[in-house]
Amino acid sequence: MPETARRADRPGDHRPGNRYGNRPTMKDVAARAGVGLKTVSRVVNGEPGVTPDTERRVQEAIEALGFRRNDSARVLRKGRTASIGLVLEDLADPFYGPLSRAVEEVARAHGALLINGSSAEDPDREQELALALCARRVDGLVIIPAGDDHRYLEPEIRAGVATVFVDRPAGRIDADVVLSDNFGGARDGVAHLIAHGHRRIGFIGDMPRIHTAAERLRGYRAAMEDAGTAVADGWMSLGGTDPERVRRAAEEMLSGPDAVTAVFTGNNRVTVTVIRVLAALSRPVALVGFDDLELADLLQPGVTVVAQDAAALGRTAAERLFRQLDGTLLAPERIELPTRLVERGSGEIPPSG
Amino acid sequence: MPETARRADRPGDHRPGNRYGNRPTMKDVAARAGVGLKTVSRVVNGEPGVTPDTERRVQEAIEALGFRRNDSARVLRKGRTASIGLVLEDLADPFYGPLSRAVEEVARAHGALLINGSSAEDPDREQELALALCARRVDGLVIIPAGDDHRYLEPEIRAGVATVFVDRPAGRIDADVVLSDNFGGARDGVAHLIAHGHRRIGFIGDMPRIHTAAERLRGYRAAMEDAGTAVADGWMSLGGTDPERVRRAAEEMLSGPDAVTAVFTGNNRVTVTVIRVLAALSRPVALVGFDDLELADLLQPGVTVVAQDAAALGRTAAERLFRQLDGTLLAPERIELPTRLVERGSGEIPPSG
Repeated sequence: MPETARRADRPGDHRPGNRYGNRPTMKDVAARAGVGLKTVSRVVNGEPGVTPDTERRVQEAIEALGFRRNDSARVLRKGRTASIGLVLEDLADPFYGPLSRAVEEVARAHGALLINGSSAEDPDREQELALALCARRVDGLVIIPAGDDHRYLEPEIRAGVATVFVDRPAGRIDADVVLSDNFGGARDGVAHLIAHGHRRIGFIGDMPRIHTAAERLRGYRAAMEDAGTAVADGWMSLGGTDPERVRRAAEEMLSGPDAVTAVFTGNNRVTVTVIRVLAALSRPVALVGFDDLELADLLQPGVTVVAQDAAALGRTAAERLFRQLDGTLLAPERIELPTRLVERGSGEIPPSG
Repeated sequence: MPETARRADRPGDHRPGNRYGNRPTMKDVAARAGVGLKTVSRVVNGEPGVTPDTERRVQEAIEALGFRRNDSARVLRKGRTASIGLVLEDLADPFYGPLSRAVEEVARAHGALLINGSSAEDPDREQELALALCARRVDGLVIIPAGDDHRYLEPEIRAGVATVFVDRPAGRIDADVVLSDNFGGARDGVAHLIAHGHRRIGFIGDMPRIHTAAERLRGYRAAMEDAGTAVADGWMSLGGTDPERVRRAAEEMLSGPDAVTAVFTGNNRVTVTVIRVLAALSRPVALVGFDDLELADLLQPGVTVVAQDAAALGRTAAERLFRQLDGTLLAPERIELPTRLVERGSGEIPPSG
């Protein structure tokens, strides 16, 4: 017997060259059970019209052959796939962990599978991923958008794909949106520093084209204006959240005659780096950060933050998605969830110098 | 004109009652372009035999109608789907963030979409999710297993689905496995405490049925035995990682005549709670934790950890998966990645009392 033939028959050989070539079909099940194809189809899809004895024979054949229903075929027949997609910005950002889990829990409560992927803050990649999920016929999409033009989704929405945007709004289409109150949260956080005597307050945020970053900057400006405080150019720095960029920005606004006595940071990635910069300084500088951090309460001083409820964002978005699919929502809405100021010490340090 | 008819035609009405009913088909494209169905199919699938002028007309019809290829249909025809699944344990555990992102980056480099879901540490849910992904015909699965019996995957593996287990081994099947050196890492961490003079050392870990928890306990026992130190029963506590359970376990082993002078924690969830317990004590207690934490270096004292390389785990697993799909791997292997002891202060505190 030639070597290749022996190989293919060897038990435990799990890597046939011809993938998918030997997956058992309903035809195989029908042949083994000695019944017609339609009978197998009835059993597989839980339809009536099969005697208990025949059903048992079919089930035995299914188990013996290891047959599994191909859901790709069902999608073509039935339309709905009982799956939803989630387009994240970054799988590794801890802010999205509780948000993803909340979406998954709502999906599961509706008997749907959650399919995830990330755009890595690249609008092209967001579009590619969203359309790839639509091509696999998800029933709906929860999107944390990287881009600001979502007209590419219009044919999908017309075709019935439910869509909800979360954390950031949709661009150039009318859609359900669930956001935190980024403007109000930032304004409150900066007002808190002002209430503790600060006037020279710096702002370090993410790239200005990101909605949340722009809104939080607007909140900073509003609080400063409310206090009648002019903002020096050097006190605002927007850009990527890589530690080197943030570190340089912080060091610059913390030096010179106009040095700030307090910093407001625009998100958790920025806060983590600024905490490191401030820890190395000899004088105390106040800090309030947007987004909570896991060990923020154990640092010396504890880090005062404007906390978002990431789980509530995910839950609210997913629930709206399933209400769209149920047909109980009529018009797109914009929902804003409140933020919460958590005082822990760093935001209550008085101005020095 | 009746209200319903007007509604369906109104531009911007994105929620038709009959979902999927009005998605344009290849037939619609063919009709609009004035060509045959086969010609549209050739253009959509990039096949030769179409004149540039005809291709342009078909493309214009595709754009005008918002037609998108249905990948479910392609799966049925071609076998491969250019997608892989990742079954996680918990979407919200920060350890899995860098791991997921690394898997996604490798998938993307191979032109594949990553589909994610979590088992929430429930073996039934792991099986349900893994089989649901197989039913949607992913080419391969990277699994962080919750269960210890994976024979349910045998028909899938025989059918050609590539599988790699990561973080924890497969149960009762022969499969590729990528792990951290959990035993060696824990033994080194406990030996580090012993080298700093500790003999009464506690161990708090996750549920003993979880492979990583059991291996780390084994490492603890080995280090204690190497040092000729008998382990009191009250020094070991395994169970869930919920803060209340961990807090009680820590408080018990830190009180009484046999109180420990150092604690080794079995994972990041446990470490976070034990840090809180130790911060509230009046005497210093040494701590080494398995897994790194984002702000561990900024706490007072900094937290000494046995760090895993979560990104390397994900990358290695995903690369093996694609090598299986390429047919360049012959036999399943078990790969163990080293851990790294990071000294930051908490693990170098001498025994007190």
